[in-house]
Amino acid sequence: MAELYLALLHHPVYDKHRAVVTTAVTNLDVHDIARVARTFDVRGYFVCTPVPTLRRLVDRIIRHWEVGPGAAYNPTRKAALALVRQVPALDDALAEIERDTGCLPFVVATTARDAPGRLTHAMLRQRVSAAGPPVLLVFGTGWGLTDELIARCDAVLEPIRGVGEYNHLPVRAAVAIVLDRIRHGR
Amino acid sequence: MAELYLALLHHPVYDKHRAVVTTAVTNLDVHDIARVARTFDVRGYFVCTPVPTLRRLVDRIIRHWEVGPGAAYNPTRKAALALVRQVPALDDALAEIERDTGCLPFVVATTARDAPGRLTHAMLRQRVSAAGPPVLLVFGTGWGLTDELIARCDAVLEPIRGVGEYNHLPVRAAVAIVLDRIRHGR
Repeated sequence: MAELYLALLHHPVYDKHRAVVTTAVTNLDVHDIARVARTFDVRGYFVCTPVPTLRRLVDRIIRHWEVGPGAAYNPTRKAALALVRQVPALDDALAEIERDTGCLPFVVATTARDAPGRLTHAMLRQRVSAAGPPVLLVFGTGWGLTDELIARCDAVLEPIRGVGEYNHLPVRAAVAIVLDRIRHGR
Repeated sequence: MAELYLALLHHPVYDKHRAVVTTAVTNLDVHDIARVARTFDVRGYFVCTPVPTLRRLVDRIIRHWEVGPGAAYNPTRKAALALVRQVPALDDALAEIERDTGCLPFVVATTARDAPGRLTHAMLRQRVSAAGPPVLLVFGTGWGLTDELIARCDAVLEPIRGVGEYNHLPVRAAVAIVLDRIRHGR
């Protein structure tokens, strides 16, 4: 099976006016997505932000659960947070994956916008289930990854459709659904 | 199709030592699950806590997004939060659903613990896709719903399995995965 990695980008992403911004790292994105990643056998979860202060903040949170009072209070959290790696940008994640596995990953962008040529979840599942280079799934915060960043990726995953027109899943929910679909079917 | 409802219980749930406790309502559980519920066509999302102060706090948050400054800033959040209803306990949710639809719901508990006789996601999907009484899915906070509460429900949904042994999904992720499975397959 191909190794599976996640990246959560805080830059470059859009805000609601389609300006390119850097979003704040939130504690919950780190925790929730780490637990989901651990559940579905993800090898590494890259939290990408160019802001050094926010990386230091996340380091402190992780240390609390890894070696601080939290490690005894909730060891399952420690196991999840061990997957988290902080890097300034997507390129740093690519370099770390290459160091881990010996090859650059196949990079799959995610977006809530549909368009022709999207990779289906079934196709992604097949790729991850077969032998091959590692796969990196890239999620955006704010109002989503910029077009320029998406254009740099190897493929774009089809959006998750709900039942009606409402199309505003939290990124935490999107990660959970995509990983469940990749690992368990459809 | 049967109407689908969610309830998130803050009592009675276990803590890590299996003591029965009341957990705090978190802002993010209200927001994230409301957005997921709106995406997957849930008719109502009951936030259940016996603590009046916490219900007042959540009311204030919802008002911010419904009629306060948040309504203009982020109208999609308003649409999601319109599904939220606060009640002291599960029985109040049952009564409200009966008022909405004319019948008491089929109540499905969720748990991370497996046991014989669990309802599969496929069976739940069939039930929700067919005509019939409304279905209420009950999720617990903390370390999960108490055995007594689960015993009162009509059925218990099979747990979401990951790839290995790790079995600590955030409740927000569990709600997203269950709704995706019910609406889209498997």
